[in-house]
Amino acid sequence: MRIAVVGGLAAGPAAAAEAKRQAPDAEVVMFEEGRHVSIGTCEIPYYIAGHLGGADALVVNTAEKLERSRGFEVRLRERVTALDARAGRLVVDALDYGAQREERFDRVILATGARARRLGVPGEDAAGVFVIRDLEDAQAVRLWLETESVRHVVVAGGGYIGVEMAEAVRDRGLQATILDPSGRVLNNTVACEASDLMDRAVAAAGVAVRAEKPTEILADRAGRVRAVRTDAGELVGCQMVVVSIGVEPRTELAVAAGARVGEMGGLAVDDRMKTSLANVWACGDVAEVPRAPDGRRVLWPLAPTGRRSARVAARNAASRGGRADTFRPIAGGVAVKAFGIEVGSVGLSLAQAADAGLDAVAADVRHWTRTAAFPGSCPIDVRLVVERGAGRLLGGQIVSAEGAALRADVLVPLVQAGATARELAEDLDLVYNPPVAPAVDPLKVAASVAVRRAGR
Amino acid sequence: MRIAVVGGLAAGPAAAAEAKRQAPDAEVVMFEEGRHVSIGTCEIPYYIAGHLGGADALVVNTAEKLERSRGFEVRLRERVTALDARAGRLVVDALDYGAQREERFDRVILATGARARRLGVPGEDAAGVFVIRDLEDAQAVRLWLETESVRHVVVAGGGYIGVEMAEAVRDRGLQATILDPSGRVLNNTVACEASDLMDRAVAAAGVAVRAEKPTEILADRAGRVRAVRTDAGELVGCQMVVVSIGVEPRTELAVAAGARVGEMGGLAVDDRMKTSLANVWACGDVAEVPRAPDGRRVLWPLAPTGRRSARVAARNAASRGGRADTFRPIAGGVAVKAFGIEVGSVGLSLAQAADAGLDAVAADVRHWTRTAAFPGSCPIDVRLVVERGAGRLLGGQIVSAEGAALRADVLVPLVQAGATARELAEDLDLVYNPPVAPAVDPLKVAASVAVRRAGR
Ligand SMILES: Cc1cc2nc3c(=O)[nH]c(=O)nc-3n(C[C@H](O)[C@H](O)[C@H](O)COP(=O)(O)OP(=O)(O)OC[C@H]3O[C@@H](n4cnc5c(N)ncnc54)[C@H](O)[C@@H]3O)c2cc1C
Ligand SMILES: Cc1cc2nc3c(=O)[nH]c(=O)nc-3n(C[C@H](O)[C@H](O)[C@H](O)COP(=O)(O)OP(=O)(O)OC[C@H]3O[C@@H](n4cnc5c(N)ncnc54)[C@H](O)[C@@H]3O)c2cc1C
Repeated sequence: MRIAVVGGLAAGPAAAAEAKRQAPDAEVVMFEEGRHVSIGTCEIPYYIAGHLGGADALVVNTAEKLERSRGFEVRLRERVTALDARAGRLVVDALDYGAQREERFDRVILATGARARRLGVPGEDAAGVFVIRDLEDAQAVRLWLETESVRHVVVAGGGYIGVEMAEAVRDRGLQATILDPSGRVLNNTVACEASDLMDRAVAAAGVAVRAEKPTEILADRAGRVRAVRTDAGELVGCQMVVVSIGVEPRTELAVAAGARVGEMGGLAVDDRMKTSLANVWACGDVAEVPRAPDGRRVLWPLAPTGRRSARVAARNAASRGGRADTFRPIAGGVAVKAFGIEVGSVGLSLAQAADAGLDAVAADVRHWTRTAAFPGSCPIDVRLVVERGAGRLLGGQIVSAEGAALRADVLVPLVQAGATARELAEDLDLVYNPPVAPAVDPLKVAASVAVRRAGR
Repeated sequence: MRIAVVGGLAAGPAAAAEAKRQAPDAEVVMFEEGRHVSIGTCEIPYYIAGHLGGADALVVNTAEKLERSRGFEVRLRERVTALDARAGRLVVDALDYGAQREERFDRVILATGARARRLGVPGEDAAGVFVIRDLEDAQAVRLWLETESVRHVVVAGGGYIGVEMAEAVRDRGLQATILDPSGRVLNNTVACEASDLMDRAVAAAGVAVRAEKPTEILADRAGRVRAVRTDAGELVGCQMVVVSIGVEPRTELAVAAGARVGEMGGLAVDDRMKTSLANVWACGDVAEVPRAPDGRRVLWPLAPTGRRSARVAARNAASRGGRADTFRPIAGGVAVKAFGIEVGSVGLSLAQAADAGLDAVAADVRHWTRTAAFPGSCPIDVRLVVERGAGRLLGGQIVSAEGAALRADVLVPLVQAGATARELAEDLDLVYNPPVAPAVDPLKVAASVAVRRAGR
């Protein structure tokens, strides 16, 4: 059996390793068009900030190490340009040699990931305008910051990567302005409808957030970015622009082969992570996954989902018999920490619940992360989103200077299992110790409010 | 309907308030022999350390406030000395008047709590020897520290209160020595069989832990403690002794009335928190409760269990119909933070699992609290205890400078629900963001090891 894995960054290596584990006698080959496999993408903002040392800090694994320790073959700088699922053929471009050839396979796992969205405005190709997606982007940004005299950076998009990049730039002693049409940060990426703690921390750090978006990028004679024009007609002077307005799944290879695409534009897969094509599975940022509260299939381009979907795709792809593994719907957890504030979010926001046709209510509380009087205790905002009547926990958003992300983790098994607010409020034995948590944990305080609001 | 609540510290007020909520027309009377209700017992070590201000910081609620806001009656300085369940009669001593009288009741909730264990060695009544249980103890310790010239404090018992008191004393600039027969801290209270991070932090703080126990306490002519003699024949000079060797449930009132006592010496109750006596329920530190992993009934003298058992006892006591609420077995969570190290523990340790007749294995990992290279990332020790074969999660112990207690909370719903290590390793979407958690959370790393060790 020959298993081809297309894409070698995060989901790809996980899938290739798992396939080899599942079917040790199979030949597993991973194709990656870039120069690197297994990059710590999520660490890029901290590398740019200068907190992690050189670029090698971003290299989690090399091709050689993977080949040696995991027993699959790695083909760097090889792009898969066509896929014939029925015939069991791939077309592969060896980028460094300009050569094209065909490869045979029995099964394919697509881990082609996502690309950063571009603004699509005039001037976007000016020098000093970056997206943040891979090691090359990270190195290019560092080089720019170290060789140009940058004073002010415009960050287009206030999602979690935008916020992390604004902090990185601030940590380098530069000024940053975030442009986000919502006028807030984390407006879409992480639902924090009910808390302004992050907005206040961003403002306190001197980072302006403007309810505008770029309409044009202006460069000097040498082609270096010098300003951004916004839809408010303003000109914002800057010596660097970061474009962080989301990602889009790289479905083109699969789509050309006839694969079905889902509602959100990602590859449609079943609960074994199989695409609509015979012998082709998908995982990572390119694939849609079901979410627990309502079963809707969504793009959830985060590393844990990638790793989990890679496992399921690989086990099924490498299985000679029937179902080898099933993808359990995601809780939909995400966390960010920047400017001293943590945001943790799980499941649906109130808006997302309404959008999903669920009759939901929100319970909002501001409580303390430890015993209120304990030195270092911080305010913490908790919103729980619950279904009216049944009181099922649909989601939770937590914001504080500490203990927000891990409290989101506490909600993960509850949201994934469809637990009720009452269970959280009444039956869950969360620990109490003054230096780490108050007598009644903020999650339980919010759950008690939610029980009342849910009306049962 | 007249409901009497005996004991007014933590479980008592919670039960009285819940009973009144459940049966608003009932007359609810709470008897407390002390001068205070609703004390923040768990904050006592930090009050003694000087971190919380005056003693009023420990007063969570006054009798007047409770009466006004919750609608039940509070009788301070009244001790219930006898109970006739069949006849519906209590004998009450009004301590400030030396008067005794009878009170009628329809139902009784016992929340008589626990008392601190004494050493039972000669000299224990010397001035400067304290247990830490209530506001009076706390004030007496503060007074002693502020009026005597204390330099060295011996803490007998290295459980969580002993460790917190050693830290409190250290925070006041004094020296502390812990005597614990195990030669370690947190040996029984919190299972941290697999980690020495706390032991090392205690040592680094200059607190000696000696594998000895007191056999005699020596005082000066004025009756003030001056030394402790240990079972190793050593004399340890000191000007204060803290005795923190555990608690025993105050069952005497119920036992005299004929109530059944469980294996651990606490009041035996059913899953409605009803004692073996007609019309008598119990809650808080005095009652045994079932634990989730094996159903064994144990004493779990911690505040969250007290609050939860109070709710169940009160709802059933105040119910005119049948079952109003059921006590869900405890996860058995506990957390401590001292000397900069957090310990979180849930469920069974390996020794407790063996003792419960379960065929268990442990998975131990040392990982990182954040991305390893991220500034501030700390080592974290995780032990998961799982059932061999099935791989059911029986318990977990986590030790680190950060993020240990809240990670214990993540295990709470899993242990309470009987989830498997595989679910945690493979299906649980714990969040990943470099400043708050590594790519694979330490809990998941340990769970993967546990899956292999459990042999399925
Ligand atoms: C700046 C940044 C910060 C992030 N922070 C977090 C975080 O804190 N927490 C979190 O959970 N997630 C985070 N993420 C998201 C996480 O990095 C992604 O979910 C993860 O990288 C997705 O992995 P993937 O392998 O599916 O896709 P990708 O990382 O996009 O990798 C796909 C790979 O496939 C290759 N490829 C594509 N098509 C072909 C082809 N036809 N032939 C050969 N090779 C091909 C590409 O070159 C690429 O290397 C972050 C992402 C970024 C960019
Ligand atoms: C120093 C210290 C630190 C702690 N730290 C933590 C922690 O960090 N986390 C945690 O979860 N738990 C902690 N605890 C445990 C927690 O405080 C107890 O679980 C809780 O106080 C138990 O409440 P209770 O009401 O059942 O019992 P108690 O607190 O013992 O209250 C019982 C009350 O009943 C009264 N009483 C008894 N008999 C009679 C009678 N016959 N008539 C009238 N009144 C009577 C007593 O005077 C007493 O006030 C700590 C305890 C101590 C001492």
